[in-house]
Amino acid sequence: MTDNEARLPPVGAIAVIFIAQRTDEDEVGYGRAAGAMDALAATQPGYLGIDSVRGADGLGITVSYWADEASAVAWRNNAEHAAIREIGRARWYARYRLIVTQAVRGYGWERGGA
Amino acid sequence: MTDNEARLPPVGAIAVIFIAQRTDEDEVGYGRAAGAMDALAATQPGYLGIDSVRGADGLGITVSYWADEASAVAWRNNAEHAAIREIGRARWYARYRLIVTQAVRGYGWERGGA
Repeated sequence: MTDNEARLPPVGAIAVIFIAQRTDEDEVGYGRAAGAMDALAATQPGYLGIDSVRGADGLGITVSYWADEASAVAWRNNAEHAAIREIGRARWYARYRLIVTQAVRGYGWERGGA
Repeated sequence: MTDNEARLPPVGAIAVIFIAQRTDEDEVGYGRAAGAMDALAATQPGYLGIDSVRGADGLGITVSYWADEASAVAWRNNAEHAAIREIGRARWYARYRLIVTQAVRGYGWERGGA
């Protein structure tokens, strides 16, 4: 198994898809908060990993993976996370969508991989 | 309902998360093929929409939404799509992961929205 395949969430895991358009405000504050939230998420029970990309136009997609519904909901309800979300709506985001999904299957491919 | 909320997939819809690292080869050919595949996908039964972002480092996340498992599988098995995937593995991608999920719930937020 490659590292790439190792990062696939197991069947039944929760994948939270967050699609957000950044404003052009406060890049420094946003970057600091995003880093702090990634680090805090990684300490939570049931955390499986995160994938995150932002394009030059400020549109970003972040997918976080959780062992089960309970751990995803616990992260949503985390007080520090909730406080940061308030700042996000006031300052960093023009709009977003959040889609909670459950993994059905997955696979990875890697150039030159087994 | 805003346009943003309108774009949420219904509960039970399939969301296919594709996380891919581009090589730095053939940007023109890749862009042409990606545009053609987006246009072809949009004509398929059960297609609900797509979100796609690529960062400056070549890592991209694309999420395509399908009404049900049958329409997502039909798109996977589409002959033109399959042929393009072969070129993708030969030329455009260093590695990728594909995670098929089913939507559990979702919501949207928009600055100044209702």
